[in-house]
Amino acid sequence: MDGKPLRGSRWTHTPNPVYSRPMHHFPLTVFYEDTDLSGFVYHANYLKFVERARSDWVRQLGIDQNALRTAGTVFAVHRVEADFLAPARLDDRLEVRTTLAMQTPARLTLRQEVRRGEAVLFRAVVTLVAMSTDGRPRRLPPELKQIGGKL
Amino acid sequence: MDGKPLRGSRWTHTPNPVYSRPMHHFPLTVFYEDTDLSGFVYHANYLKFVERARSDWVRQLGIDQNALRTAGTVFAVHRVEADFLAPARLDDRLEVRTTLAMQTPARLTLRQEVRRGEAVLFRAVVTLVAMSTDGRPRRLPPELKQIGGKL
Amino acid sequence: MDGKPLRGSRWTHTPNPVYSRPMHHFPLTVFYEDTDLSGFVYHANYLKFVERARSDWVRQLGIDQNALRTAGTVFAVHRVEADFLAPARLDDRLEVRTTLAMQTPARLTLRQEVRRGEAVLFRAVVTLVAMSTDGRPRRLPPELKQIGGKL
Amino acid sequence: MDGKPLRGSRWTHTPNPVYSRPMHHFPLTVFYEDTDLSGFVYHANYLKFVERARSDWVRQLGIDQNALRTAGTVFAVHRVEADFLAPARLDDRLEVRTTLAMQTPARLTLRQEVRRGEAVLFRAVVTLVAMSTDGRPRRLPPELKQIGGKL
Repeated sequence: MDGKPLRGSRWTHTPNPVYSRPMHHFPLTVFYEDTDLSGFVYHANYLKFVERARSDWVRQLGIDQNALRTAGTVFAVHRVEADFLAPARLDDRLEVRTTLAMQTPARLTLRQEVRRGEAVLFRAVVTLVAMSTDGRPRRLPPELKQIGGKL
Repeated sequence: MDGKPLRGSRWTHTPNPVYSRPMHHFPLTVFYEDTDLSGFVYHANYLKFVERARSDWVRQLGIDQNALRTAGTVFAVHRVEADFLAPARLDDRLEVRTTLAMQTPARLTLRQEVRRGEAVLFRAVVTLVAMSTDGRPRRLPPELKQIGGKL
Repeated sequence: MDGKPLRGSRWTHTPNPVYSRPMHHFPLTVFYEDTDLSGFVYHANYLKFVERARSDWVRQLGIDQNALRTAGTVFAVHRVEADFLAPARLDDRLEVRTTLAMQTPARLTLRQEVRRGEAVLFRAVVTLVAMSTDGRPRRLPPELKQIGGKL
Repeated sequence: MDGKPLRGSRWTHTPNPVYSRPMHHFPLTVFYEDTDLSGFVYHANYLKFVERARSDWVRQLGIDQNALRTAGTVFAVHRVEADFLAPARLDDRLEVRTTLAMQTPARLTLRQEVRRGEAVLFRAVVTLVAMSTDGRPRRLPPELKQIGGKL
């Protein structure tokens, strides 16, 4: 765990006239393992794609999920609303874009998109919570407070 | 493809005083492959669990998804709203319960739950469409019309 | 964890004229998640199939892998030699057959096959070891000694 | 499909005094989806890791696996001998190294390793064949002949 961003991941600001918001960009490629017999990406794998982007984000805030777990806390997905807009195929180069939608001491809500160039293939609103390793609710790690102000 | 229900899957009617509705029950067990370092089931795998139940349902209606694909049509998940309510663990015996929520010529919306005994661990509303193997929208196969009246 | 065999799993004896050997039979069905764009089962998923059979076996010996892990020990695959003989497809009903090949205090070697009816689709020799949760070698749990004599 | 190498993948020559041999290097990161309750990478996922490297290799030879499949041919893994030497964890930055071991018109055998820095975590010999989409053997695509001479 070195907190360095992964190859090709980067931050921009959303071009909002009123207030600007950091946006995380995460590149990925579609492999054989991601496809199913339809010839397209298996639907549940988009959840894996957007989770990779969240892990990269969290890592860049200096949060070590291995250490967190040893200390008895893990992140858990609490709710997902997901729209599957267009299919992706083997060898597609995709980008996951992530922005913060809402943050409380107990919950973090993110907007995430999977794009191929300008085409949005998948769009989700994902709410995260923290949980003890025996399954009980926990407060989110304080380092996550930086998410809103990242950049 | 023999259209026979899988071991342990079965249908009941929901105990509704006004009108009864068929409910599909599908048993499964949690294996190592389903878990992640949290010690619980990886969140995206609940989507796999409920998809197994849908495939069993479709198979019992006599729909052969291999033949369908050879003829150029595949099912696609269009939208998912999912709540992750409590974690499941290795060796847990779970049940997926599926009922029809809404049906049009182009879309099918199902309510699905994953339970361990009486505890509801996961709840989702899943909308399905049909798609050609080159990614264009198609009408749903007519056999699916039986879903509302199954039993 | 109740130690009961899963639906449909069972034991027989191999029909060996000299000495008989217990054989574990484990049924499974191929789902969408198991396939890839070839239309067949993705090769790595056969390793998941045979692992499900091993977990069912271990469970029937009264070994609770959750409790084992809490006590700091996990099983690990040490070596696999696998032949992919014929492809499986969506909706195929398969059977995993497992027999003991060799057992020492530190290692367990199993022969495993995936069959569709009489056709052998996949064949593997799998060697297992035990490991502490910080990655160091451990002795295998003593309950595994029963494996050779199961039935 | 643009035939460009993925971010960070590259070729070197093995430092062999007699004759030099091209080696393909492919970087990857361990994500949540790759782990299981042991806290380490799930064993079958190493097969996914080395397959990503093979796909990157094939792509760089100008082979479009989508087009190949539309034309009725897919690659299939025929045999794997794999040793699991040391466990990988979440956030580990790994490298897959691939070299050609043997090539005939019908088969391609590769040596593949997964490393974390200088430590070899996983080592495999993988034999590939080509197959028609209805499951019959085919000759390997002729472009693969370049593999031995790549660089």
